[in-house]
Amino acid sequence: MKPLEWVNGNLRFLDQTKLPNEEFFHETNNVDIIADAIRRLAIRGAPLIGIAAAYGVAVASFSIDEKNNYKVRNKINEAINLFASTRPTAVNLFWALERQQKILNRWNSSITELRSLLLNEAIKIHNEDAEMCEKISLAGVNLLPENCCILTHCNSGILATGGRGTAIGIITKAWELKKLKHVYIDETRPLLQGARLTAWEMNKNRIPATLIADNTAAVLMKQKKIDVIIVGADRIALNGDTANKIGTYNLAILAQYHNIPFYVAAPVSTIDSKINNGNEIPIEERNANELKEINGLNITVKEIGVYSPAFDFTPYELISAIITDKGIIHPPFFNILLDSDKVENK
Amino acid sequence: MKPLEWVNGNLRFLDQTKLPNEEFFHETNNVDIIADAIRRLAIRGAPLIGIAAAYGVAVASFSIDEKNNYKVRNKINEAINLFASTRPTAVNLFWALERQQKILNRWNSSITELRSLLLNEAIKIHNEDAEMCEKISLAGVNLLPENCCILTHCNSGILATGGRGTAIGIITKAWELKKLKHVYIDETRPLLQGARLTAWEMNKNRIPATLIADNTAAVLMKQKKIDVIIVGADRIALNGDTANKIGTYNLAILAQYHNIPFYVAAPVSTIDSKINNGNEIPIEERNANELKEINGLNITVKEIGVYSPAFDFTPYELISAIITDKGIIHPPFFNILLDSDKVENK
Repeated sequence: MKPLEWVNGNLRFLDQTKLPNEEFFHETNNVDIIADAIRRLAIRGAPLIGIAAAYGVAVASFSIDEKNNYKVRNKINEAINLFASTRPTAVNLFWALERQQKILNRWNSSITELRSLLLNEAIKIHNEDAEMCEKISLAGVNLLPENCCILTHCNSGILATGGRGTAIGIITKAWELKKLKHVYIDETRPLLQGARLTAWEMNKNRIPATLIADNTAAVLMKQKKIDVIIVGADRIALNGDTANKIGTYNLAILAQYHNIPFYVAAPVSTIDSKINNGNEIPIEERNANELKEINGLNITVKEIGVYSPAFDFTPYELISAIITDKGIIHPPFFNILLDSDKVENK
Repeated sequence: MKPLEWVNGNLRFLDQTKLPNEEFFHETNNVDIIADAIRRLAIRGAPLIGIAAAYGVAVASFSIDEKNNYKVRNKINEAINLFASTRPTAVNLFWALERQQKILNRWNSSITELRSLLLNEAIKIHNEDAEMCEKISLAGVNLLPENCCILTHCNSGILATGGRGTAIGIITKAWELKKLKHVYIDETRPLLQGARLTAWEMNKNRIPATLIADNTAAVLMKQKKIDVIIVGADRIALNGDTANKIGTYNLAILAQYHNIPFYVAAPVSTIDSKINNGNEIPIEERNANELKEINGLNITVKEIGVYSPAFDFTPYELISAIITDKGIIHPPFFNILLDSDKVENK
C-alpha cells in the first residue's frame, strides 16, 4: 500500500481524511487539488507533504502551455509559492520546495527538459525518504530493550513518509526483529491521527496495539506499561527543541516524571539550520471547528472560544535522543546539524 | 436551572448525555430508569449521583405495594443494591446509600412513614450538598490571586452537584467577586464532559472561557496563561490521594512541572475513611465503544484494543491543597478526615 505514487502522468494519493472507514485514492494532474489535499490533511505527515509538494511542482510544469522561458519560470515559481503557503510548521515542505527551486534556477533549456528534471527530482526526494526511513528504523531499533512496549503519538508511518515511517518505522522494524511486545497509541485529538491512522497501520501489520485517550498516557506510565516513547518531528531547531503534533510536549513531561526514555525520530532534513530554538518555530493554529465538531456534529456550545494549535515544541532537555538517518544523536546536544555529521562520521 | 429536582412525586432530571445540543428533562417514578440514567451518565458527577441514588431509594418505597414490613425491607435493600452497582468509583454514591440504609434500619412503623422518612433524607442530602458547595466555593475563592485564569477538567458544577458545584462553584463565585479573568476547559475525552457540560455552564454564566483538547494544557501552562488548576474529586483516600476523571493525574504532573498550584475541591463526604491510599480505590473501566465511536461513527479500526479507565488517582504529593466544606486542608496531609476536623475547629 503506497499512500502516494506517480502513476501514468498523475499523482495518485490516498485521501487520509477518509481513513479508517474508506481507502479512497485520488488521481490527479491538477496542482490545486494537490495543494488543497495538503491543506485539508488528506496528505499529511512532515516528510510526505514535502514529497507531495515536490511532485506538485512537477505537475505544475506539465500543465504549462508556454514557449517563453521567462513566463514558464514565473508559473513554476507561482506553484512553489502555492505549496509553501499550505502548511507553516513542517520544514520538510520548504526543504523539498527549495530543491525544486534549485532545479528551476539551473534550468535553461526546453519545457520538456524542465518537466523531466522536476519529475526526476520529486522521485528522487521520494526514494531518498524511503531510504532515510530504513536507516532511522535500523538505528532506532538498537535503542529498544527486548520485548518492549512503545507509546507513540499521532502518525509517523507509511502514511506520513515516503517509506516505512520514522517513529512507526522503528516500531514495525522492531516487530519484524521480534523486539516488540505491544504498542500503545495516543488517539491524538483533535484530528485523531492516532485513532484513525496509526491504529490502521498497526492493524495492517498485525501488531498488537491498544488505543488510549491522550489523557490516559500518564496512568499507563505509572503502571509501568510503557518502556519507551517514540514520536516523529515536524521541525527540529539547532538546539534540539522539536516541533511535533500538539500533545508531544505533554508526553515528554510525563516521560521525564516517570523516568521513561523519550525519543524523537526524524530525517536530518527535518532540522532547520535557520532556527536556533523552539520559540522561533512557527506554530500553525487550526480552525476552531476541528475541535468543536466531530463527524459534522457539535460537541460543544457554539459560543465557546477555542485554542487549537496543531503543534507544540518539546524543549531539548526533555528529549533522551534524536534518531536520524545519519545515526543516533545523544545529549548534550550542541548543534544538531553538526552533531548529526559527527555521528555519521564516527 | 436545576439538573435534578423532586417534582409532584416524580424525580425530574436533565439528560446530560444530550447536552449541549438539547436540554431534555425526564420525569419518572421508575427506579430502573433512575439507575440506568446513572449508569449511562445522563446523571453524573460524584455528589449528584449520590443525591440521585438517595431519591431513587425513596422512589422505590413509593412503588412498593406490600403490607409485610420484612418484605418491604427486602425490596428497599434490593433498590439500595441496585444503585450501589451502577458506578464503582464515586464514594458519595455509597455514602448517600448508607444514609438511606440507616433510615431503613431504624424504621419500624408503616410504609407511609418509611416513604416520608426516605424522601426527607434524600431532600436533606440534596440541600446539604448545596450548602457544602457554597462553603467550598467561599473557601476556595480565598486561594485565588486577583484577576486569575483557571484551568479545569471534566465538570464539577451545577450539573455534578446539588448546588453551584465544587471546582466550578469556586469559578462562578470568583466571577461574581470579580477575581476571575478567564477559564480554560479541558474537553475531557472520551465523554467530553468539559466540551459538552462545562462549556455549557460557562456560557450560561457568561464567563469568558476557552475550550482546549486535553493534550494542549501543557502549552498553555508554558505560555503562563494558567494561574491555578482546580478539579473535583470522586473519592479521596485518607492520605490525600484523589480519584477523579481520567486525565487529572496527567494535569497534576504538568502543574508541578510548570510550578502552578493544583487544587482539589470536594465535600468531606468524598473522603473514604476505609481507604488508606489511591491504590485501594476501585477504578471503573468504561466500554471500549465510548472511545472508538463518536456520534455513533467509528473513529478507529474495529479490531483495535482499547484501554479506557473512567478515572485515575493523583498522588497526594502533587496536590497543593484540598478545598472542603470544612475549610482548606494544606499539606503535609496526615489523615484527611482528621485534618478536616482540625481545619474546621481552628
